[in-house]
Amino acid sequence: MSLLEDFKWRHAVKAFDPNHKVSQQNIDAIVEAARLAPTSSGLQPFSIVVIENQKVKEKLVEGALNPDCMKECSHVLVFAGWDNYTPERIDMMYDLTTDVRDLPQGRFSRYTDILKSSFSKKTEEENFVHISQQTYLGLGFALAQAANLKIDSCPIGGFDRKVVDEVLELHKYNLKSVVLMYVGIADVERDWVGKMEKARRATEDFVIEIK
Amino acid sequence: MSLLEDFKWRHAVKAFDPNHKVSQQNIDAIVEAARLAPTSSGLQPFSIVVIENQKVKEKLVEGALNPDCMKECSHVLVFAGWDNYTPERIDMMYDLTTDVRDLPQGRFSRYTDILKSSFSKKTEEENFVHISQQTYLGLGFALAQAANLKIDSCPIGGFDRKVVDEVLELHKYNLKSVVLMYVGIADVERDWVGKMEKARRATEDFVIEIK
Repeated sequence: MSLLEDFKWRHAVKAFDPNHKVSQQNIDAIVEAARLAPTSSGLQPFSIVVIENQKVKEKLVEGALNPDCMKECSHVLVFAGWDNYTPERIDMMYDLTTDVRDLPQGRFSRYTDILKSSFSKKTEEENFVHISQQTYLGLGFALAQAANLKIDSCPIGGFDRKVVDEVLELHKYNLKSVVLMYVGIADVERDWVGKMEKARRATEDFVIEIK
Repeated sequence: MSLLEDFKWRHAVKAFDPNHKVSQQNIDAIVEAARLAPTSSGLQPFSIVVIENQKVKEKLVEGALNPDCMKECSHVLVFAGWDNYTPERIDMMYDLTTDVRDLPQGRFSRYTDILKSSFSKKTEEENFVHISQQTYLGLGFALAQAANLKIDSCPIGGFDRKVVDEVLELHKYNLKSVVLMYVGIADVERDWVGKMEKARRATEDFVIEIK
């Protein structure tokens, strides 16, 4: 089956089967897809918190607009972005890059100086917008991978960030939650969206072609 | 080859072969992936401008931080977001949804009222951040599809939005550019990144597991 068929197959699941656990292997593959996703200047400014623990999920319910999905899905992935770009984090990532590529440390210092200067001129809020965009791209790779494995999922942008950040103590990692992804197997009976046609604008309305 | 292998294979190409055109079929598939991507509340608040025309690409060079890639790639995809959420656009999308699903128009009016109220309380800038996040998720699907087809690409967040918006007259469509994607086939000689190891944080540094 082609990847496009996987994309047609997937949908934002509205009810999960609480008795079905997704295998560690499949969770690992979904997380790995996000890890491999490209990010601006390769800074990879986000992490994923993988939550299988039912008690922690129950604590997060308070911050969820769809508490049943939070409780009943197999795993909650919290995509959490760096709370800001800092010189230390930029150096960390480029030191890793020179190490991996067997290049002298500091090989990219002209470029990292530009990055540090550019991000330092922006507010924390502006930088977090940039970070959140990279995080959404990573979410795209994770959703694509889940679809390819025929694992059900639902991306969740609407939730109480304060609750999620506090329950998971994300400040300890210098992270802030950006977006959630529920992973599991749909409860076909209750998942009303699964019975419906996918609604997208027609290609001719979506694309502007300049030949 | 698994999708994860495709994700390992892809990289942000730094030089394209100007003599290689990507087929219309493959461009269509990449755009289709983005069209199928999920968006918040299904609003699908972005479009893709597909540029093959060399003269238009040359006009965009002024706004590009990497002018050679802009000139030499096969196609430039401009991911452009709605300039704001409006009641009319929300109704457009939900009228389409009820049509596609053979439901009475207005079936989701309670929900669309909430959406309209919520977005109207936010500034245009805040709404555009939300729109840009959905657009990046769509970019993720497009990049995944390109990798799956072994088509080279490079996502570009750093460019002069003013130039791109003006050259393409995006205001006529109520759109603003968010992110670019160069599509083509790499010039292996000049594409220095293609010779390097991919640099990503190790899984144990990227993932926080709560069992």
